[in-house]
Amino acid sequence: MGEFDLLARVRERLGPPGGRVTLGSGDDAAVTAPGGGTATSVDAVVEGVHFRRDRASLRQIGHKALATALSDLAAMGAEAGEAYVTLGVPPDLDEDGCMELLEGMATLAEDSGTTLAGGDVSRARELFVAIAVVGHGESPDSFVGRGGASPGDALVLTGEVGGASAGLALLERPELEPAAGAGGAALRERQLAPTPRLAAGRALAAAGATAMIDLSDGLVADARHLAERSGLALRIEAEAVPLARGSASVLEASGGEGPLAALEGGEDYELLASIPAERLPHAQRLVHEAEAGLPLTAIGEVVEGEGVQLRLPGGQALEPARGFDQLA
Amino acid sequence: MGEFDLLARVRERLGPPGGRVTLGSGDDAAVTAPGGGTATSVDAVVEGVHFRRDRASLRQIGHKALATALSDLAAMGAEAGEAYVTLGVPPDLDEDGCMELLEGMATLAEDSGTTLAGGDVSRARELFVAIAVVGHGESPDSFVGRGGASPGDALVLTGEVGGASAGLALLERPELEPAAGAGGAALRERQLAPTPRLAAGRALAAAGATAMIDLSDGLVADARHLAERSGLALRIEAEAVPLARGSASVLEASGGEGPLAALEGGEDYELLASIPAERLPHAQRLVHEAEAGLPLTAIGEVVEGEGVQLRLPGGQALEPARGFDQLA
Repeated sequence: MGEFDLLARVRERLGPPGGRVTLGSGDDAAVTAPGGGTATSVDAVVEGVHFRRDRASLRQIGHKALATALSDLAAMGAEAGEAYVTLGVPPDLDEDGCMELLEGMATLAEDSGTTLAGGDVSRARELFVAIAVVGHGESPDSFVGRGGASPGDALVLTGEVGGASAGLALLERPELEPAAGAGGAALRERQLAPTPRLAAGRALAAAGATAMIDLSDGLVADARHLAERSGLALRIEAEAVPLARGSASVLEASGGEGPLAALEGGEDYELLASIPAERLPHAQRLVHEAEAGLPLTAIGEVVEGEGVQLRLPGGQALEPARGFDQLA
Repeated sequence: MGEFDLLARVRERLGPPGGRVTLGSGDDAAVTAPGGGTATSVDAVVEGVHFRRDRASLRQIGHKALATALSDLAAMGAEAGEAYVTLGVPPDLDEDGCMELLEGMATLAEDSGTTLAGGDVSRARELFVAIAVVGHGESPDSFVGRGGASPGDALVLTGEVGGASAGLALLERPELEPAAGAGGAALRERQLAPTPRLAAGRALAAAGATAMIDLSDGLVADARHLAERSGLALRIEAEAVPLARGSASVLEASGGEGPLAALEGGEDYELLASIPAERLPHAQRLVHEAEAGLPLTAIGEVVEGEGVQLRLPGGQALEPARGFDQLA
């Protein structure tokens, strides 16, 4: 396979660039007319570390690589702009395989209003996909970082958690399937084909979110990142956190502590945000409208202190540091 | 090594972000205030394909990875802005090794006015570095693509070619050293630590360059890319092309056709541009001032037709397609 042959096929599949891109793939660089502010993030997935080709299709691998990158833009409340894809191609992946992978990315790009504006292809011993994504906003101040939470803010979560980690458990140990009840297929789908919450992120930014993060490392670990950057503590009511159907029982069957395992399970790519409490109903309506029916749930609040306090059913509370360590 | 420990060390080394970056590493995305137009390019180097750790130091590998990415911005006439680095870290590369690699990038970033604004680290079986670079300009029209050459334009080249390929030959076959005369160290340096011609690229853009490309694949191959995108032919006078001192004799000793091999040798990262002939003296002065003493040499012209015509000493000319095939 020649690098130039593959790039020609890629350009044919993608068609002319749109959106803010005025000069697309095929030159030394892509040229764009950005908005007043840009949010840029890079993300990579590596075979054997982030995915296995015997568990996920090439299309799913491509989809997830772009989805996880776009999720970082969602967490900024950015409008999706452009993606630049670097592919490391091992000897056993042929040109058709590369196009399959691209198809997963291209479909998500179309669905999310992202322009695949450039890329690079290299030989490699193992398959990897490195993606840079650029999102746009009216000004640098229009994005929502992790550091702006205030004491008294409500803590809100889109969707449900635990699904992706339970899905991974099912993929690794098919014998756990009975524990999933009727939810097995949906759990695996959460692991293999996550949805970046771009519209919900913009809705939360518009509703006045003060800080926001996407859940890649798990609710508790990512809550800690937000708490650290904001210099405050987050108090989470464990019972209030919506869990994906079947996730707690699958995770319990796989040796975890049921609902607690769901709270620390990664890769759900939901959004966790802080928002002034009086804006909560408005935010819930905007998110619900932005992503058909997506729930936004109040799961706790921002308080003075540091770290994450997890309140368990019955009023028991885990101390910040201990709580985190116990869960991590 | 923990990903978070390494990232903390990286942030400490880099200090607070500058330039257009209003929110640096440590959030979901970096936030910038872009100019009216941006040029974005991605580039990756993979161990065993683009470099070998027994021939280049980690610092050199880091330098070259960023240099080759920035070279694409130079070829657009862009002002260097931000770089986002994705590192695939194999088991035998420890945290100190990662910092060495970063040091090569950070030094070049400082020298070139680039902000290392974000990154991602992953475990991997082999070392790879994927870099996204963003350059800025007053508007999307202020960049110089590959497609704007006109018949009659002069074809100009910064610096000299052949050095990087001769340097590679010396690294691979130390017994060729006598053929390099006193130039061996400089040739190896050209291979291991190329300089992105950012200031020269901006000078050429300011002087009115109509099309521009950086030489990664070699003068003849990259000239062909420029010719294709412009829908014209490039006529190159082989004798006019400045060769790095000692490169022709090293390449001849290694089995190539001496001066012709230097014209097809890759990785020199000089700039090839077309420019209206009357602007040539002005462009030469600007480039000379922009990068202390860097020569800009007229090596041919843009003509009707397609492909690359290489005129050899004595008036012999290679036909476009045949010429390329013969050289490639």
